[in-house]
Amino acid sequence: MKTLEINQKYRCLLKETTVIDERGELRQLSVAGENPLTIYLNKREIVTIMTLGSQAIPLVLGYLRNQQFIRQYSDVISLQIDWEVNAAVVNTRNEADNIAEKLNSRTVTSGCGQGTIYGNLLEQIEGVQFPEMTISQSEIYQLSQLLSRVNTTYRSAGAVHGCAICSRNEIIAFNEDVGRHNAVDTLAGLMWIDDISCDEKIFYTTGRLTSEMVMKVAQIGIPILLSRSGVTEMGLSLAQKLNITLIARAKGRHFLIFNGKERVVLDLIDQDASINHTSA
Amino acid sequence: MKTLEINQKYRCLLKETTVIDERGELRQLSVAGENPLTIYLNKREIVTIMTLGSQAIPLVLGYLRNQQFIRQYSDVISLQIDWEVNAAVVNTRNEADNIAEKLNSRTVTSGCGQGTIYGNLLEQIEGVQFPEMTISQSEIYQLSQLLSRVNTTYRSAGAVHGCAICSRNEIIAFNEDVGRHNAVDTLAGLMWIDDISCDEKIFYTTGRLTSEMVMKVAQIGIPILLSRSGVTEMGLSLAQKLNITLIARAKGRHFLIFNGKERVVLDLIDQDASINHTSA
Repeated sequence: MKTLEINQKYRCLLKETTVIDERGELRQLSVAGENPLTIYLNKREIVTIMTLGSQAIPLVLGYLRNQQFIRQYSDVISLQIDWEVNAAVVNTRNEADNIAEKLNSRTVTSGCGQGTIYGNLLEQIEGVQFPEMTISQSEIYQLSQLLSRVNTTYRSAGAVHGCAICSRNEIIAFNEDVGRHNAVDTLAGLMWIDDISCDEKIFYTTGRLTSEMVMKVAQIGIPILLSRSGVTEMGLSLAQKLNITLIARAKGRHFLIFNGKERVVLDLIDQDASINHTSA
Repeated sequence: MKTLEINQKYRCLLKETTVIDERGELRQLSVAGENPLTIYLNKREIVTIMTLGSQAIPLVLGYLRNQQFIRQYSDVISLQIDWEVNAAVVNTRNEADNIAEKLNSRTVTSGCGQGTIYGNLLEQIEGVQFPEMTISQSEIYQLSQLLSRVNTTYRSAGAVHGCAICSRNEIIAFNEDVGRHNAVDTLAGLMWIDDISCDEKIFYTTGRLTSEMVMKVAQIGIPILLSRSGVTEMGLSLAQKLNITLIARAKGRHFLIFNGKERVVLDLIDQDASINHTSA
């Protein structure tokens, strides 16, 4: 039996502010909260994350999962968050043996900011077996529609990125955060807490598909990524290496398949074209 | 006399790739290059940055400047970049005394990825004196027009952020990178190399105004930030603390002044409204 506790009291999700528009008129506006949260794992300080703080427990869990500080959810004894002191205190049964080493190796990645990724995750991801699945053009459009209804923070405050775990026709989990990678980590944490399997799942993000994003989703075990934004070269080459499907620039009726077209069924175009282009 | 050398040969700026669109048609597309670059300062490994690599020398210089590993440009003896081994080797005269300490303190920020910022920059920025200046509404529109013409990488490949140092009516320096903070760092480096003063300068970014972004621009000494995107809470509170002008959501004829309205002259609205709203 785990302890998952949180003291939300002092957290700021949205902050009201007054701005002046180009006509010189005053406007009330919400700004996305950005709260520092320092993670302590078994009494060792790991990192300080800036986060909206909407789902801090899965965020901390997912961060430690994606950075491979925690191997399996059953290792977690307790996770307590106190926004009064902006601290997350995590205790686990079996500690990852190489924490010190992880904390020494540091890469600043192009999460669009400069993300930190520890250790050498890539080696460990190669050879991952992904569940068999496909997604159809009509499912892509259906999901895009659903997703456009849930990004409430973005619509009220902007300045956040959204990520989602979807099945073929519904959104299983969604998170928005000031840090896009926080949103991915939060979903990784939710998949542990709610015991969501990666079978028949699609990962959606409003942000770009960078190598770090592709790597994190690969770790979760999902083979299809869908993004409103573009793809970077390392994101693409990593997807090619790991055989992950990248569908990007997905807006309105448009999208581009950058890799793994064999998982995409273009069911809305005439059969010939479909056979012609979607067979591996 | 400094040595600034670069071996560009092995760097990838844009990579051609074939994608499939929603109609099942093949398309040739460029993808933004993402090259790892490991920075060594006086034989000590500092960090590995993922970068487009278009302006690596100012990037490395600006990174070390903004992270306060190097206090002044005159301290730099040599900076050599070799893309064959993805390494930047920097030698300086006076080494910042607290490198080890800087390397130990680590904060993952919400650059939109998870950025790394060392040491306690904030203390050192407080009390910064900014040059006196204002920007007018017509200048904002003029700059936005100019800026929309220079983002060539974004238009060809997407997945990059652009930043610029502008005077009232022209772009002094512009950089695009897969990491938004790389673009800011690159401009900080260019200001050293080309001896660009921060007087009468405006900083523009396509990305969000997060605390890290505001902090970096404050370090450079520029008091006016202009962004196409939104503002996060810590970006705003830091700007309020440091008395920095934030103009965000600047698209077409629209923009919102989040802080420091006394530096903005709304010259295109009737005089009363202008006096009414723009005086401090």
